[in-house]
Order: sequence, then structure tokens, then C-alpha cells
Amino acid sequence: MSIVVVGSVALDSVETPFGKIDKALGGSATFFSVAATFFTKDVKLVGIVGEDFPQEHTDFLRSRGIDLTGLERVSGKTFYWSGRYGDNLNVAETILTELNVFEKFAPKLPESYKDAKYVFLANINPELQMDVLRQVRDPELVVCDTMNLWISTKRAELLETIKHVDIFVLNDSEARQLTGESNINRAAKKILDLGPDRIIIKKGEHGSATFTRESYFSCPAYPLESVFDPTGAGDTFAGGFLGYLASAAEMSESNIRKAIVYGTVLASFNVEDFSLNRQRSLTRGELESRFDMMRAMTQF
Amino acid sequence: MSIVVVGSVALDSVETPFGKIDKALGGSATFFSVAATFFTKDVKLVGIVGEDFPQEHTDFLRSRGIDLTGLERVSGKTFYWSGRYGDNLNVAETILTELNVFEKFAPKLPESYKDAKYVFLANINPELQMDVLRQVRDPELVVCDTMNLWISTKRAELLETIKHVDIFVLNDSEARQLTGESNINRAAKKILDLGPDRIIIKKGEHGSATFTRESYFSCPAYPLESVFDPTGAGDTFAGGFLGYLASAAEMSESNIRKAIVYGTVLASFNVEDFSLNRQRSLTRGELESRFDMMRAMTQF
Repeated sequence: MSIVVVGSVALDSVETPFGKIDKALGGSATFFSVAATFFTKDVKLVGIVGEDFPQEHTDFLRSRGIDLTGLERVSGKTFYWSGRYGDNLNVAETILTELNVFEKFAPKLPESYKDAKYVFLANINPELQMDVLRQVRDPELVVCDTMNLWISTKRAELLETIKHVDIFVLNDSEARQLTGESNINRAAKKILDLGPDRIIIKKGEHGSATFTRESYFSCPAYPLESVFDPTGAGDTFAGGFLGYLASAAEMSESNIRKAIVYGTVLASFNVEDFSLNRQRSLTRGELESRFDMMRAMTQF
Repeated sequence: MSIVVVGSVALDSVETPFGKIDKALGGSATFFSVAATFFTKDVKLVGIVGEDFPQEHTDFLRSRGIDLTGLERVSGKTFYWSGRYGDNLNVAETILTELNVFEKFAPKLPESYKDAKYVFLANINPELQMDVLRQVRDPELVVCDTMNLWISTKRAELLETIKHVDIFVLNDSEARQLTGESNINRAAKKILDLGPDRIIIKKGEHGSATFTRESYFSCPAYPLESVFDPTGAGDTFAGGFLGYLASAAEMSESNIRKAIVYGTVLASFNVEDFSLNRQRSLTRGELESRFDMMRAMTQF
């Protein structure tokens, strides 16, 4: 069944202790879509790029089977982000954010997108997230991400959006920021009271914690000895998660947990190289082998 | 089979955002021993107290079946620690440490202790840890803890001690301090090169990660909505761990993992009240119920 994703398509310049890359393919919708294609070939992207967006990138996304009908190309420059990671690879220092064409982004779903059953709202302005939700006719599952910027500047709009989502994905510092609770388990309970049926709190090297009103699932991170570039890890996680769920027969607790583990595994590969480079060479066999490792390392 | 534990027996004054307690029963050997008695009645304590150590505390320890033949009582005052936890309950601020009689502590094992099969060296001076090891005849399993103080002031002695231990338990910041590696997986690999067959890295609210040369086990923390007083959590973990192992038929990977989960569960109870108060009322049924929860929350 179709997944519609709305988010940024960007060019990223990233510097880490291990090297740098200039204007590489990036953006939340990009990382998400490519990750999802490991499980389903029915991914429909909504985004916007400028005239400078290289043809090779659209070619690459199309080669993965991603539907780009909803990717607008307008005059001006593509969203550009440049950032740096120090020895603590958990925190990016933003050097420059040029919204460019993204500033005027008003997501418009092509007719062929409107019957999608799965929707992923990447971390864009919550007002745009709601605009997208209004255009989808009868989604089965809406998953939403956010970021610190919207929690501080568009709090009311964000609270309105998350009333309408089934699964809310955010990281631990965002959960604390949103609720004022330092204890993550209490923060999750408060967020569940805001509407979503399920909260997935991403904790970087500590994995993720998933909460519903009745259940709790702790998923460790895959134990990497080095993280090359963490950019896009969260969106890759979400892409693997929703991609697997869309390909699964039913939305059971068991399949949701497997989806979280697949998302974790995909993110663990993505951080091994710049941009989406590791996903370009990643095989299904490698994915399955790390999935099996995740099982082996948690069983007792 | 017998467990010998050497460590501090102390009086603790603790202040947390939820209240305070004055000169309560504390010390690493105490938390360890009581936790271990949930699984085995053959725990032998080596430690030292002063004349001020209340009879009710020795009575309590004896009532749990702990062998106190090795608990010296000498003239002077008992080891006293006073500390405070702020909103971040991960880090204790030490207000006062009075070593008192502990300063002259030279652990001497009673003859009846020397054939113990399991040894726990709590976080005392590594030279004293070695002294204890020399007195045990033929231990099957030696588990050792340490602390930041010894890593900075007795580094060479600590490195010598851990050559002789089977399992080394330390927390994440200590693992980083010992190796200079910020990545915990790389740090663990370096520590394995120093001698121990197994490293258990405690990560507080993020659970623990256990490394051997061939295997990796990730164990989450039990998801508590509030931590009342974290004092003694690490030693309680170690007590539950080694207590369960001593009671298990064989030292298989599977039993070691179950032991880690029991240790985690015991620690999760201990932090729910001051001192060992929660362990005083804890039942085996409550323990098993949280153990089952740990399984339910990690399975996928």
C-alpha cells in the first residue's frame, strides 16, 4: 500500500572529524523515501527543489522506484543546510541554513497521492503538516516527526497537528522540551495524553523507547564502533519503520516492533557514510543479517 | 555456592528532591549482600565498621542470612558519606566523605571464607582488591567494580587487578575515563584487551551493555516514572547479578543474561526508596513480575 511522505529535499554540506562532503543529497523526505524502498516500491514523495537540483539526484530517487510526481521544481535554489559534528557526534552544529525555495513550500498532493494509506509527516512546520493531512482522504496510519524549532516557535500548531496523528516520533531532548519532564517515561505519558496512540522516542546511541497506553518496547541501537555521519539517521529510521509496516500483512504489535528494529538497522547503516551513500550499496542480505544480530543481542 | 563480597559498610545521609534521610544503612558491600540474598543464602561479607554502627543494622543483615564473620568492628567511627541529588538524579554531589575506620581497612578473610567460589570486589582501592584475591584459594568467578577515583589515582594498580578478574563492571563514564574512548563499544573492546572475559557497562536510565570477545547483550533499564534515590543502584545490580548466578546450575551465556536482568530489576526496586528500604519489603513475587515485564518489553 502507498506511503506518502512530505518533507525537505535538500543539499547538505557536512563536516565531521572523519571528512567533509559538499552539497550532497539530503533532506528528511529523501532519507525517508530511500529507506522505505528497501521494503516497498510504492513511495510517493511531496517536496520542492530549485533549478540547481542535480538531475542525477532525481534519477537516483526514480531508480529506487520513488514516485516524484509530487516533487515540485521551481525557479530559485534548493534548500541548503551546512553543518558540522565535533567529537560528540550526537549534536550537529548548524553553520548555515538557506531555506531558499523551501520558504514558499505549500505542499500540494497530486490526485494520485490522495488515497495513500500511510502518511509520514517529516519535521516541517506543523501548519504544513496539517495542510497535507487535509488533502489525504482516508489514511490508515499517520506518522509524524517534529523538531526543537517547532516546539518553541509553533507550539500551539504542533499540539493541534499531533491530535490527528497515530504515531508521533521524536527524540528524547524534544520530548523533554515539549513536556517539561526530565524523566522520559513521564514525558511519554504526557505526550500520549495529547492524542497519539503511540510515541516513539529516539535516543541516539541508546536506541529508542516506544510507548502506548498499554505497552512499552525498548529497542537498543545497533552497537557501532564508529559513527561517520549521523545526518539523516532519524528520517532513515522512520523510512525503514514505515516501509516495513506498509509491506507487512497486518498492523500488529509484533509487526510494529519488527518495523522499529528494521528502522534501527537501516539507520545504523546510514550513519556509516556521508549522505545516503551507504544506502546506495546496502543489500537486503546485509539488512537481514543485522536484524538477526539485533535479536541475538536482546534475547535472554 | 558461597559468595564473598568485600566493600564498604557505611552510614549515608542523602538528600534528594523528594526528601532526606540521616545516617541510614549504606555501603557497597551492604547493598550487594542484601540483593544477593534474594537468590542465595550463602553470602559472606568482608568489611569494617566503627563502634557507632547500630546493632539494628547488623541484626538486619544477619536476619537476611548474611555471614558477618568477616565484618570487623573496631574503635572509631563508621565510614560516613553524605550526598545530594538534584533534578538530574544521575549524578550525586558529595557533600562530605569521612573514611573514618575505613581508612585503615585491611581486608582479612576468615578461614571459612577462603574456599568461596564467587567473589565480588566492590569499588574499593584496587590494592585492597588484590589483597582479597590473594586470600581466596580457588574462585570460579571473580567480579570487580571500580570508581572514577581509582581510575585517576590508582590507575596502574587497577590495571593490575583487572588482569585477574573474570567480569569487570563499571559505568559508562568510567569506561570512557579508563580508555579515553568516547564510543562505548570501542571502549569496551579496549577494556577486554586488559584481561577480563566480560565487561558490563552500566548506563543508568539507559540500562547496560555487556561485552565478551564473541557476544554482546543489551539490557534496558526498567522504565521507572520516578527515581527516588539512586544511591546503591550499581551495587544492588551486582548483588542481584551474582546472587542469581550463584544459584543457577551452570554459568552459561543464557544464565549470565538472566542474571543481568535480575540485577537490573533489583536495582530498579532499590531506587524507589532511601537506603535499602525498598529491598526490606520486596517480595520474590514482585521481583518475578518485573522480570517478566523485562522480557515482554524487549521481545520482537
